[in-house]
Amino acid sequence: MKFTIEPKSSSSKPSAIFQIKNETFGQGLFQMMAGPCSVETREQIFAIAECLSSLGVKVLRGGAFKPRSSPYSFQGLGLAGLQLLKEAADTYNLITVSEIMDGEDLHLMEEHVDILQVGSRNMQNYSLLKKLGKSSKPVLLKRGCSATYHELLLSAEYILSGGNERVILCERGIRSFDAYTRNVLDLSAVPVLKSLSHLPVIVDPSHGTGRRELIEPMAKAAVACGADGLMIEVHPTPDEALSDKDQTISLESFKKIMGDVQKLVHSL
Amino acid sequence: MKFTIEPKSSSSKPSAIFQIKNETFGQGLFQMMAGPCSVETREQIFAIAECLSSLGVKVLRGGAFKPRSSPYSFQGLGLAGLQLLKEAADTYNLITVSEIMDGEDLHLMEEHVDILQVGSRNMQNYSLLKKLGKSSKPVLLKRGCSATYHELLLSAEYILSGGNERVILCERGIRSFDAYTRNVLDLSAVPVLKSLSHLPVIVDPSHGTGRRELIEPMAKAAVACGADGLMIEVHPTPDEALSDKDQTISLESFKKIMGDVQKLVHSL
Amino acid sequence: MKFTIEPKSSSSKPSAIFQIKNETFGQGLFQMMAGPCSVETREQIFAIAECLSSLGVKVLRGGAFKPRSSPYSFQGLGLAGLQLLKEAADTYNLITVSEIMDGEDLHLMEEHVDILQVGSRNMQNYSLLKKLGKSSKPVLLKRGCSATYHELLLSAEYILSGGNERVILCERGIRSFDAYTRNVLDLSAVPVLKSLSHLPVIVDPSHGTGRRELIEPMAKAAVACGADGLMIEVHPTPDEALSDKDQTISLESFKKIMGDVQKLVHSL
Amino acid sequence: MKFTIEPKSSSSKPSAIFQIKNETFGQGLFQMMAGPCSVETREQIFAIAECLSSLGVKVLRGGAFKPRSSPYSFQGLGLAGLQLLKEAADTYNLITVSEIMDGEDLHLMEEHVDILQVGSRNMQNYSLLKKLGKSSKPVLLKRGCSATYHELLLSAEYILSGGNERVILCERGIRSFDAYTRNVLDLSAVPVLKSLSHLPVIVDPSHGTGRRELIEPMAKAAVACGADGLMIEVHPTPDEALSDKDQTISLESFKKIMGDVQKLVHSL
Repeated sequence: MKFTIEPKSSSSKPSAIFQIKNETFGQGLFQMMAGPCSVETREQIFAIAECLSSLGVKVLRGGAFKPRSSPYSFQGLGLAGLQLLKEAADTYNLITVSEIMDGEDLHLMEEHVDILQVGSRNMQNYSLLKKLGKSSKPVLLKRGCSATYHELLLSAEYILSGGNERVILCERGIRSFDAYTRNVLDLSAVPVLKSLSHLPVIVDPSHGTGRRELIEPMAKAAVACGADGLMIEVHPTPDEALSDKDQTISLESFKKIMGDVQKLVHSL
Repeated sequence: MKFTIEPKSSSSKPSAIFQIKNETFGQGLFQMMAGPCSVETREQIFAIAECLSSLGVKVLRGGAFKPRSSPYSFQGLGLAGLQLLKEAADTYNLITVSEIMDGEDLHLMEEHVDILQVGSRNMQNYSLLKKLGKSSKPVLLKRGCSATYHELLLSAEYILSGGNERVILCERGIRSFDAYTRNVLDLSAVPVLKSLSHLPVIVDPSHGTGRRELIEPMAKAAVACGADGLMIEVHPTPDEALSDKDQTISLESFKKIMGDVQKLVHSL
Repeated sequence: MKFTIEPKSSSSKPSAIFQIKNETFGQGLFQMMAGPCSVETREQIFAIAECLSSLGVKVLRGGAFKPRSSPYSFQGLGLAGLQLLKEAADTYNLITVSEIMDGEDLHLMEEHVDILQVGSRNMQNYSLLKKLGKSSKPVLLKRGCSATYHELLLSAEYILSGGNERVILCERGIRSFDAYTRNVLDLSAVPVLKSLSHLPVIVDPSHGTGRRELIEPMAKAAVACGADGLMIEVHPTPDEALSDKDQTISLESFKKIMGDVQKLVHSL
Repeated sequence: MKFTIEPKSSSSKPSAIFQIKNETFGQGLFQMMAGPCSVETREQIFAIAECLSSLGVKVLRGGAFKPRSSPYSFQGLGLAGLQLLKEAADTYNLITVSEIMDGEDLHLMEEHVDILQVGSRNMQNYSLLKKLGKSSKPVLLKRGCSATYHELLLSAEYILSGGNERVILCERGIRSFDAYTRNVLDLSAVPVLKSLSHLPVIVDPSHGTGRRELIEPMAKAAVACGADGLMIEVHPTPDEALSDKDQTISLESFKKIMGDVQKLVHSL
């Protein structure tokens, strides 16, 4: 599976369709992913997992190793977080996704997590991407906050060219001039990336806006322009979240969005 | 109708609902607007007007005075363009919108056009905005390509504070770092501006993307996040358009989008 | 004096050298311009004019019609401001520069002001530029806050192609993602614009940074990379300035900068 | 050496002054750094080292592990490159700087290189930064292409808080909207970072502009606003460079710049 240097060539390929555990991912196959920014406690992650399961969501996200701008901010629970995430997912039969920050953690992450997330800050950490190209686990690759479409596709290429064909692309907002939102959610990325690549493209409206009240409208917009999935940060008590609380919604709000999104997916 | 300096205060006002000829505009009242970038010939503008009318569209756009980056590019037909636009609109009972570039043209524009458009390049042309504040015609105010939400609302305030209460805001893409699209369509502007202001907010996916193939998905996304209208560039033979041809769609493509959008508007 | 559509062609022309009153402007001929953001009182503008004159500065800036983001902010003294500016300049034998916001003011501005400034918000107000192309007064054209080099040169072309050959380009900062400075001063604009065009290029570090403490280092940097002039906002009591006070320096600070800059100009 | 979360606090510290081999680095102590984008051959790196040595330059840069956007581009010579770099530096008594892309390479890099560079793509690779905080080697930390000043200082904090106090900050251009230059060199970063931090701040005009003809003016501008050093890409035959050739200058051009810069450093 070698692409030429122009990732555009991949658009002539059939859309990627692949399995992760018992679920199917690919262009045109919508998958909701949700969970807390950080795994914090057993109660927290189990409450979320139970809620997601009851709504038919199949993928549970949860951070254990957290990339924080400051070394003095909460850095995540580490291994303990991974174990709690796995326990909750096993209990409710969910697929997990969590961020890998260091190639040295690969074995540990593979043991505990179903989908390895590369965060926006590491989108061009090519050493990490090359190691993921040799992993047996699928990868969720988030767009860097000032990466072009072409650069995102070339970063995916680092993984694909290593032999790992299960890559999911994620638009999560780009950096711009208006501080009102945390980032500018670039939804044109969805149709553009789907036309240039055979990979599924999902959207993260939580980081893409940084504001709770924008999650619902932007989630619906993402679905309307063809997103193959969403990733949304939820928490039983958002105001008490240890990280990203301004963009984290409650389980009640999530239920409402899940209903709207399902309706929209079926109507398209 | 005086706002304090923080336009945010307007969110405590009831949503603006106003008439333009026989049509009602306001938050929650979807209106499609379409037409050529530039009025070129009688055949062109009549063909478009007829098509729009047959689809139930009420607003016909068409440029007569064109703001072009280069003085050597086609500058529009001027008065002849306004006359053709008015004639076509009168024939098919449509409301017209066309750009005003100079306060000196105000009387001329008021005679021929129903909605006066301020283009993105003139969003902070305060002399023009003040004159429009005294006009009896409604104004379509496009966001500057690097204007913050706050700046857009303050520009609207120049019109509102002059006594003209019929203002429609338009998101049309912001300038960013990836040349793949002409601009980055910032759809978060829709829910943000609707929460900060009582004015209707529409979206122009043509300028917002600069690429034909993106008009359909982004039009649907705009509707899904609550846009109160769309403005789309159409042409009977897009490849022959004298301006903006890369982002102009055919009447056939427009029909398809109009159907999708209507379905979506009703389902929300 | 017709350029082809590619303004690049102008680089094959000899550098523009032109007179404004008794002073010579052009590539390689450094000119300092300074003065208040807004003309406020007779005392203020005369104190500044006297100081500039004593330091050998030849150009006095001062705003009379002010483009303010909000309609409720101080809008300048208007005609009274122009009269005070002219009176102070006549007393101290200075050349004046002030912003024109509206083509209707052209005759009035020409009567009172030696160099007509087009502000960044109006860089693509083509109606205004066309009128300035027919004016007998030289034009200082500021770069729009998200204008490309090419767009700035094409805006200059609107003036040049009308027959007015005395145009000065001004870099004054572009919009970016870090709110620490008001704008990002793009000093590469100096050598780039001088290579693409025959026009003189000056730098405004006041708007370009928005912070007093950065005026000195960035003024020196501008000179070091070849700026043909500087425009700096000064005020006898900066903390009391009615506009732009955070970026306005005292006459004492200006004296220090003027000395450093002159030394640097001579050493290059 | 613990900072509080606001790195600003460091401005109350005395400027950092530290030794790297026999050379002193710190605020106010100018150091030129130059060399090829990539070490390519023994002839190439020795020719450059000899030239630098003859001009009094003390620091030789050279890439061995190259972060390339595409996995199919030249990735550097790896260990062989490090060995050639060290050999040339030992012969001419130079200090070396080369990029570390992976924490796993730390021991290898420490054996061969005097200053470990973190590239802009890895500025927020916190796993790598934490490991460098425990290294005995000084670190050259390049600003990410859309990192705020605050984020850059917090990334430095990851290294400083680990106990490694020898950190050099480097401005190398930020991403913006005009494709004429590769990046926008943000020279305000120099005085801003020097006021917020006690660390030395250097400038890389090669990546900051991406164009050969801009290296000289921007190098001078950087010095004029207080840069504590420069990093410039040079090559005996720039047109044949395997990477970054558009921004790489010849040894002859470098000699000219070195002379100009030294004159400017002494005159300030």
